[in-house]
Amino acid sequence: MDFAYDAKTEELRESLLEFMDSHVYPAEPVFEEQLEQREDPWASVPVVEELKAEARKRGLWNFFLPGEHGAGLTNLQYAPLAEITGRSPSLAPTALNCAAPDTGNMEVLAMFGSEQQREQWLRPLLDGEIRSAFAMTEPEVASSDARNISTSIRRDGDEYVIDGRKWYISGAMSPDCRIFIVMGKTDEQAAAHQQQSMILVPRDTPGLTVKRGMKVFGFTDGDHGGHAEVLFENVRVPAENLIAEEGSGFAIAQARLGAGRIHHCMRLIGMAERALELMCTRTLSRSTFGKPIAEQGVVQDWIAEARVRIELQRLLVLKTAWLMDTVGNRGAHTEIQAIKISTPSAVEWILDKAIQAHGAGGVSQDFPLAQLWMAARMLRLADGPDEVHKRSLAHRELKKYRTEAAR
Amino acid sequence: MDFAYDAKTEELRESLLEFMDSHVYPAEPVFEEQLEQREDPWASVPVVEELKAEARKRGLWNFFLPGEHGAGLTNLQYAPLAEITGRSPSLAPTALNCAAPDTGNMEVLAMFGSEQQREQWLRPLLDGEIRSAFAMTEPEVASSDARNISTSIRRDGDEYVIDGRKWYISGAMSPDCRIFIVMGKTDEQAAAHQQQSMILVPRDTPGLTVKRGMKVFGFTDGDHGGHAEVLFENVRVPAENLIAEEGSGFAIAQARLGAGRIHHCMRLIGMAERALELMCTRTLSRSTFGKPIAEQGVVQDWIAEARVRIELQRLLVLKTAWLMDTVGNRGAHTEIQAIKISTPSAVEWILDKAIQAHGAGGVSQDFPLAQLWMAARMLRLADGPDEVHKRSLAHRELKKYRTEAAR
Amino acid sequence: MDFAYDAKTEELRESLLEFMDSHVYPAEPVFEEQLEQREDPWASVPVVEELKAEARKRGLWNFFLPGEHGAGLTNLQYAPLAEITGRSPSLAPTALNCAAPDTGNMEVLAMFGSEQQREQWLRPLLDGEIRSAFAMTEPEVASSDARNISTSIRRDGDEYVIDGRKWYISGAMSPDCRIFIVMGKTDEQAAAHQQQSMILVPRDTPGLTVKRGMKVFGFTDGDHGGHAEVLFENVRVPAENLIAEEGSGFAIAQARLGAGRIHHCMRLIGMAERALELMCTRTLSRSTFGKPIAEQGVVQDWIAEARVRIELQRLLVLKTAWLMDTVGNRGAHTEIQAIKISTPSAVEWILDKAIQAHGAGGVSQDFPLAQLWMAARMLRLADGPDEVHKRSLAHRELKKYRTEAAR
Amino acid sequence: MDFAYDAKTEELRESLLEFMDSHVYPAEPVFEEQLEQREDPWASVPVVEELKAEARKRGLWNFFLPGEHGAGLTNLQYAPLAEITGRSPSLAPTALNCAAPDTGNMEVLAMFGSEQQREQWLRPLLDGEIRSAFAMTEPEVASSDARNISTSIRRDGDEYVIDGRKWYISGAMSPDCRIFIVMGKTDEQAAAHQQQSMILVPRDTPGLTVKRGMKVFGFTDGDHGGHAEVLFENVRVPAENLIAEEGSGFAIAQARLGAGRIHHCMRLIGMAERALELMCTRTLSRSTFGKPIAEQGVVQDWIAEARVRIELQRLLVLKTAWLMDTVGNRGAHTEIQAIKISTPSAVEWILDKAIQAHGAGGVSQDFPLAQLWMAARMLRLADGPDEVHKRSLAHRELKKYRTEAAR
Repeated sequence: MDFAYDAKTEELRESLLEFMDSHVYPAEPVFEEQLEQREDPWASVPVVEELKAEARKRGLWNFFLPGEHGAGLTNLQYAPLAEITGRSPSLAPTALNCAAPDTGNMEVLAMFGSEQQREQWLRPLLDGEIRSAFAMTEPEVASSDARNISTSIRRDGDEYVIDGRKWYISGAMSPDCRIFIVMGKTDEQAAAHQQQSMILVPRDTPGLTVKRGMKVFGFTDGDHGGHAEVLFENVRVPAENLIAEEGSGFAIAQARLGAGRIHHCMRLIGMAERALELMCTRTLSRSTFGKPIAEQGVVQDWIAEARVRIELQRLLVLKTAWLMDTVGNRGAHTEIQAIKISTPSAVEWILDKAIQAHGAGGVSQDFPLAQLWMAARMLRLADGPDEVHKRSLAHRELKKYRTEAAR
Repeated sequence: MDFAYDAKTEELRESLLEFMDSHVYPAEPVFEEQLEQREDPWASVPVVEELKAEARKRGLWNFFLPGEHGAGLTNLQYAPLAEITGRSPSLAPTALNCAAPDTGNMEVLAMFGSEQQREQWLRPLLDGEIRSAFAMTEPEVASSDARNISTSIRRDGDEYVIDGRKWYISGAMSPDCRIFIVMGKTDEQAAAHQQQSMILVPRDTPGLTVKRGMKVFGFTDGDHGGHAEVLFENVRVPAENLIAEEGSGFAIAQARLGAGRIHHCMRLIGMAERALELMCTRTLSRSTFGKPIAEQGVVQDWIAEARVRIELQRLLVLKTAWLMDTVGNRGAHTEIQAIKISTPSAVEWILDKAIQAHGAGGVSQDFPLAQLWMAARMLRLADGPDEVHKRSLAHRELKKYRTEAAR
Repeated sequence: MDFAYDAKTEELRESLLEFMDSHVYPAEPVFEEQLEQREDPWASVPVVEELKAEARKRGLWNFFLPGEHGAGLTNLQYAPLAEITGRSPSLAPTALNCAAPDTGNMEVLAMFGSEQQREQWLRPLLDGEIRSAFAMTEPEVASSDARNISTSIRRDGDEYVIDGRKWYISGAMSPDCRIFIVMGKTDEQAAAHQQQSMILVPRDTPGLTVKRGMKVFGFTDGDHGGHAEVLFENVRVPAENLIAEEGSGFAIAQARLGAGRIHHCMRLIGMAERALELMCTRTLSRSTFGKPIAEQGVVQDWIAEARVRIELQRLLVLKTAWLMDTVGNRGAHTEIQAIKISTPSAVEWILDKAIQAHGAGGVSQDFPLAQLWMAARMLRLADGPDEVHKRSLAHRELKKYRTEAAR
Repeated sequence: MDFAYDAKTEELRESLLEFMDSHVYPAEPVFEEQLEQREDPWASVPVVEELKAEARKRGLWNFFLPGEHGAGLTNLQYAPLAEITGRSPSLAPTALNCAAPDTGNMEVLAMFGSEQQREQWLRPLLDGEIRSAFAMTEPEVASSDARNISTSIRRDGDEYVIDGRKWYISGAMSPDCRIFIVMGKTDEQAAAHQQQSMILVPRDTPGLTVKRGMKVFGFTDGDHGGHAEVLFENVRVPAENLIAEEGSGFAIAQARLGAGRIHHCMRLIGMAERALELMCTRTLSRSTFGKPIAEQGVVQDWIAEARVRIELQRLLVLKTAWLMDTVGNRGAHTEIQAIKISTPSAVEWILDKAIQAHGAGGVSQDFPLAQLWMAARMLRLADGPDEVHKRSLAHRELKKYRTEAAR
């Protein structure tokens, strides 16, 4: 057992920290200004492309993707780097081509895509030339039970025909989002976990309508493509757009979501560190009742709790990454659920306190805290509300004793 | 001791509930649509004026204001009515001319305004013809300690000259907002609580700049005038615009805030009831894992807790109203602080659970929950963060024992 | 609506407060000393009998019992008096002959007992001459679902024969406990809620064995008769010992428990007030890091929260009492469950903080806090764990909307 | 970074787990029976000595002590072993000669004792022949601020004279406890952290009175020597009984407490695992409302939360152990405080839920849960209440930014 990062990780951390200081943090106000000034509220802005170019030049690129297609890091090596990008979550992950939902989509294509699918879509995604979306959640059903998903993907000769309504399709409002991975039912009669398939649908396919941007606590997330409601009405794509085979949708989703969950949690740690830093500097610099707010006992209690909770969450995220590397996502199932349950709510708590310590500024657009809070809060229900994951984790825990009790 | 509403309250509740059913709830989607379509993102929309006309016709008007100028209700009579308006907080309070910050401003004018001030500003406010703002909070200082407020109000001949920067001035983005009550320092040398004064500044006074709308968790609150950052640069108004005398600002603020706090809490109860209703109907109508979400044990736990917490908060709000009526705001000081501390966070908890039970819909613009949550969360820090009020309440509690311990 | 106590209540509160100051608080150390010195660890001690005599002389007697047999107070009148006795819960309730489980047993006899049962058992209980026990909970089954209770009560000629095992039978270790009300099954074939009956079993009946004292977090509660494990082995009593008729056990239990629950909650409020008082006086009198502990921000936060939570709980308890008086226990069902869920855990929180503020003293036998904590904690599961009551409360809440959702 | 235990740890874990199964768990009921039957309520019982002999024979001995005197394990190696002993905390730590307070006392003697002190006291302690006590906490002052400690240790010729009152001196009620390490003031005029010294006082020294056993939530902890109140009245010991030199008491205490804190936390993890196991098996075997309690959603929520919290705490404890091994106790200061703050309250929560899931059994003497809960609760205030440690941790966190803010 050893709690030190390996040499490669330390080296990359140093490079990345330098890049954050020299380029990312200075770009934050520029980004805000360019967002303010753009005409299309969903367009990307120049400073992002500049950061991407610089990051790629420095070799800070595609860290998220193990194997030949990506940077070849393990999850354990990537975790502390992803954490650092979480400190500036609107800019850094994109700058390094490590932003959701593209990361998960690239993984799907790398793992399950055909040669041609990889050539057509994976390559430009790896190069950061286009963006992509993952269309799973539906407004009409409780999508936390994936079996409820009702969009139909029907074979018709050499084509598949897609009909359904999706929402909260992240990134899809951006004109740069060129390709959708759509989940839907190919066979309603199959066994519960073999009804679903995934298929590639280019944005400009007739019948696909990006209808409106969904909000999250008032935020549009317009700085990274928003969250779209998307209609699929008699959308036809060639049969070879199917990913893997019919009925494999559920399995692909599981494979995709494991990594997605941990990436979110890694970044959340960085968001929490940023919040704690802001809480400290702000409360040191403002006074009420004759002394800096930082000297109020309750504020100190928050600061101590925040530090402790960050340490706890980071360790569990790192151990989960290590398990994914050593025994695979399946072997790390409990831990992946554990961080999904635990990290967003821990970080939400820290952000709540950081906001409170900032007064009105905390909820405003002048500090990143409200937006960070929203991101953490959203993750308590994105990809299944925590309660569903707790139920599943408890089932596995109880299974250990079930036979025993039955005796 | 008697926990039943009196006859007048019951009668007004019945009228109001009828008005909610027949006019307010049906107006909600219309309101959303008109907001969407307006060009000025801060303008009010026609349906609101229609509701105001109808409410006034029905005698559902100015309930908040005791005495001759208003409806003549006690706080205890107003509480259950304000609660009902909280069920549709974007529409009902305005419809009844009972919306903040106008209510507090009307109280200030009714209590402390000169004859002329009342004629010029109170009358149109009571008639719902104009809106108003209360400019206290400043971005540069921790305003929870009111002594920090630094805007200057300097006498110069027959005029006062105002210089300073305010933010989160609710309602001020609306073009209907015609008058500002501004708090600032008239005498830096006076005793701590006698440095501040309040003064009336018409919106169109030269030097007053409404600079931008501040956000709250991504929301602009553009449906009721937003929250403005406002600059006062060499703003000159006649000396008779001063409210009461120099140095009375702190006392006026205290008088104003007592009622303001309880009004917010009354409405929060209604917001919580709305959330609980939505949580029940939604979870009854959606299924996961083979049964309605309402049958999941954790969801039932939330529902029970929500019901219990609502009952608790309502009773304390009502008792506080009764105390304000019987022993005055000063005598109800502890209870006013108690609800300020307790009600927003209790209601925030309920909203969080209602959101969670709705999945992605809960955070979206398609349900009122995210916006209600924001309102409750904001009240944990508006008008001084809870922690400041707890500190003060504890001081009073400890005072009871202080002499004893010293013996 | 009126939040003032009525004149009779105020008068009795004054008498009782005087009695607490003059007799009860001074008796506390005497009580501890006598407990320490007695030989039988379950015997009652002289000071208690002296207090009873004094209280009865002053007319502070049987307040809990409405109607002709008792003091004739309403629940609403009794509530603030019971609260006061909760400030010294080992002495004051017994002193006033208002201690559980006798109170509930007297209610059962007053409501459902035959003339002869009342003469034989109710009279000496009302006179404080004997004590009694209520034997319902069983170790072998989850007794929170009353249908699980499995003790058999079998008719055999002119007798009933009782067989079963009970535990946590409060008060039964005391030699003064002369009579048991036992719940068991008379008809396993009857409808679910008509299988149970209640029957009177004198302590000295052959076959009844008081086996051992059960502990609660290490406490024996030996100062008020402990909590016994009791065996019933072929115990025979005359048929006229049955209370009311066969099959009425569940209904009697419900009637008994409603009042029992609220009495516990009333006293909990007094326990919380005592804890808050101790927290204030202790933290004012001890210093760390150069100032009294009472000036630490976190401690002030606890004090404020404690005050607020006490106010909330008291109001809900009072409203519940009022509802029981005006619409009956059945009409107050939701509120009775609400306080059962809410008050013990709120008071447990306050006690936890008071203990923490006392350091090691807080957990010791030198302060009443640890024992008070235990009492509050126990009430989170006595008479059904809170979770069962929340489930039931949620069912009723959901029922309001069930039809609507089905449409 | 590597999350696997090393080979030596795995080997020892296997041996220890075998010993737990074959000897410790079977000894638990024997232990309870022997405790019940002994005449001196503070005496140790035969089964403990048998376990010690067996453990020593197997080489499961003195694991806690690094270096030549002990088993030579690192903290990181010891942690998973200590965790296992926490599963049976009344027996296993003693069986392995790894029980507090002896462990800390042996460390003090090993690190700071003279040759002669080690020969006289360390040797028999290492051999498990005697027990010892650590006398620091005082009833009259808030001992969490060590500077408050007021017992005097006065040099008088070749002797030191000790006067003072201590309480909660764990283990001291046991007749096997032969030696006290006493902390007191040798120089009131010295700098704050150099006033205190430590000195060895044999139990039979005239003037030392073990006055009474202090309780913890009703428990006497009589199974491991209780918690004594001890009087020192003109107690004279030879000058060579002083440990190290005058004024070093504070530094020795700090050195001692670091390891003590982590040992407690290691064992708490095992206690939590035991509680979770009991919660699962109990709820699988009991039914209410037609299904096993384990299928109630709320109970599953507890089980999942318990699993997650255990994983979090274990990792932070392990990392802290690793830090102590690699950068020393001083370098691990923040982490030692973090687990002191975090682990007891996390484990207390788990125990609370396990108790609730057991109904009345949970609070009784028939399950270990209530006693385990007490141990966890006690650790929230033993060795300084959590709030003091949070305050200190926050100061260090704020220090990082203090200069920056000052600029």
